[in-house]
Amino acid sequence: MANWYLIENVRARNPLVHTITNFVVANDSANGLLAIGASPIMAAAVEEMTELGGMADAVVINIGTLDKGVVTSILAVGKAANMAGKPVVLDPVGVGATSFRQETVRLLLKEIRFAVIRGNLGELATIAGIAWQARGVDAGVGDASQAAEIALKVAREYRTIVAISGVVDTISDGKRVITIENGDELLPKITGSGCLLSCVIGAFVGVTDDYLDAVVVASASYAIASEYAVKRLERRLPASFRVAFIDELAIWDGHNQEKLAQIKEVSQ
Amino acid sequence: MANWYLIENVRARNPLVHTITNFVVANDSANGLLAIGASPIMAAAVEEMTELGGMADAVVINIGTLDKGVVTSILAVGKAANMAGKPVVLDPVGVGATSFRQETVRLLLKEIRFAVIRGNLGELATIAGIAWQARGVDAGVGDASQAAEIALKVAREYRTIVAISGVVDTISDGKRVITIENGDELLPKITGSGCLLSCVIGAFVGVTDDYLDAVVVASASYAIASEYAVKRLERRLPASFRVAFIDELAIWDGHNQEKLAQIKEVSQ
Amino acid sequence: MANWYLIENVRARNPLVHTITNFVVANDSANGLLAIGASPIMAAAVEEMTELGGMADAVVINIGTLDKGVVTSILAVGKAANMAGKPVVLDPVGVGATSFRQETVRLLLKEIRFAVIRGNLGELATIAGIAWQARGVDAGVGDASQAAEIALKVAREYRTIVAISGVVDTISDGKRVITIENGDELLPKITGSGCLLSCVIGAFVGVTDDYLDAVVVASASYAIASEYAVKRLERRLPASFRVAFIDELAIWDGHNQEKLAQIKEVSQ
Repeated sequence: MANWYLIENVRARNPLVHTITNFVVANDSANGLLAIGASPIMAAAVEEMTELGGMADAVVINIGTLDKGVVTSILAVGKAANMAGKPVVLDPVGVGATSFRQETVRLLLKEIRFAVIRGNLGELATIAGIAWQARGVDAGVGDASQAAEIALKVAREYRTIVAISGVVDTISDGKRVITIENGDELLPKITGSGCLLSCVIGAFVGVTDDYLDAVVVASASYAIASEYAVKRLERRLPASFRVAFIDELAIWDGHNQEKLAQIKEVSQ
Repeated sequence: MANWYLIENVRARNPLVHTITNFVVANDSANGLLAIGASPIMAAAVEEMTELGGMADAVVINIGTLDKGVVTSILAVGKAANMAGKPVVLDPVGVGATSFRQETVRLLLKEIRFAVIRGNLGELATIAGIAWQARGVDAGVGDASQAAEIALKVAREYRTIVAISGVVDTISDGKRVITIENGDELLPKITGSGCLLSCVIGAFVGVTDDYLDAVVVASASYAIASEYAVKRLERRLPASFRVAFIDELAIWDGHNQEKLAQIKEVSQ
Repeated sequence: MANWYLIENVRARNPLVHTITNFVVANDSANGLLAIGASPIMAAAVEEMTELGGMADAVVINIGTLDKGVVTSILAVGKAANMAGKPVVLDPVGVGATSFRQETVRLLLKEIRFAVIRGNLGELATIAGIAWQARGVDAGVGDASQAAEIALKVAREYRTIVAISGVVDTISDGKRVITIENGDELLPKITGSGCLLSCVIGAFVGVTDDYLDAVVVASASYAIASEYAVKRLERRLPASFRVAFIDELAIWDGHNQEKLAQIKEVSQ
């Protein structure tokens, strides 16, 4: 079902992924991109956004530590990437937490065409306009069984691929819904593990036009890499896991990933 | 003397700790908070400070990489937390190093009520108005025997808990003075180990009203975790220690901490 | 040829290195400086740049995540350091990638006297005014045999020491050209490994007036440390390497470095 060869395509083509991200997770995101064979660039000045939006193979936008200046830069780079036909990925970190984030995401969704929106269930529920008890940047509490419905709704409304990360990942292009039941529970104990997944998805959509396929392979490979990483640990501890996980990204390959993959298409 | 059960309370209640911090240490601070069972959020935009100050269980303010915009955000979030009755922790990084930091900290102390001020001896000496040879963000050179006096003075003047970190930690609520003789000397070889302690203290004051107790337990547990971490190292090296230390925070518990604790009340 | 005792001088004198750097790599740069025995400070507010430029033993300027405010701070700190006779190191990250970076670097080279400029071949080629196919922040594709010529040209034009990092490092003071053939290929798989080298060079020029010697010893020691780090790995994987490399910086010494050094003077 998943085209695992995309892992090799990323390594071979070394896509340039321009990421506007928050300063909490930037280092892990850059090292993770290097590990999978992509080339990260993280600039923020509005003066260079148009050039970078045209030059990059993909642009990833993460709203974790927004301010007004960053919003201006995001709009510039997003529009430049749209003009150049390059895919743009949105990671709406904690969008439910404050009005400023909600208004910003509404603006971004109006001004920029996103190839992919990836977040947790609470974040996507907020975008779908569904009441949700958000709490900081965590997923919060709601009805998890709604994931497929929310993914379909947002994918249709914004003509995008939606990836909802969680114990089960739910991915939709507005027609099909695919679930992935992989990943270790240590993954969310590392700050920025979702942010890095958005970057990895950026690298994959940067090397193919089949975005649904790219998101499924990227998400599944990422989750499975966390399972391999755990196998190399003496004890299940988060900082050791973080090192093992980035290491695992550097040696992942489709052959190994396929063995553990738990990917299903959900009939609607 | 210390109520070690607070460690379990943090895990059980998963306090939301909003931290305004410097970009050098933000990642470790977030991973450390996740490790102890707290939930970190690190926003910076003034537009969302009022909401976050009311929503968080505790707010931690770190002046490591200040600029004017950050000062505006700090004032907004500090006042909002004060209004909502949520504890605010101040980490006056390198306050003695420049006039801008001194003036900023003076302003913050006037405008915000702090539950805790945590720093090194040079930083607290500067706040106490005692001459001190500061040097960058290091503790600098002064008369270490003054720690109890400085802690008492600042605690009384600002009606707060003061925690002075060093080879010996000195903690005071303006009446009592408590010292902790734990911690490994590798801890200050990791950038941001003091900043993370301030965040951990934030998590503890976020789950109890007894702030003195919270600061003593958080500081002692943190220092003792560094001793356990060193025991797991093959060689005493800083980057390996950093991994082991965050790992140790994820499994610390009051029972183990109590065995190694060196906590004393100093008679005044 | 190299004066390895400088490694011990850095440890003994504990130079204060003020770094204006990008948020992606700041944490590793600070931990690396601590590991070699230097004392890092990373402030950004223009209000404190004059004080810090005079107080630091060396200033390192990295343009990885520029914006207009940062440029103002860089100009202030660079001029203050020049006035105080303190060495300033420039790391022109990705200067070829955008017009904004090129214009900024032109301005900095006009307004600040740099003791050292360290970058990859594409970055130095851009400064030398030689056509180069840059790609994001990577070195890009050009004629690597030009390294000596480019190093000489930039060193003469800006009366500085030039260090071009790559598989072979090329260093020049405008008269002599020295090459270093050390270093493991995992080094560029870690984001900010070049940025940290610029910081380490800052520490070395902070303890001696012989800047050429300082740059050669710092660059060679750094590269050789990566070789020792790899020897301690079970598998050649990037995140494990990053931990081992920072650990290795904490225990490097001239005696060990000298054994593996591949330093040559190139006749011109």
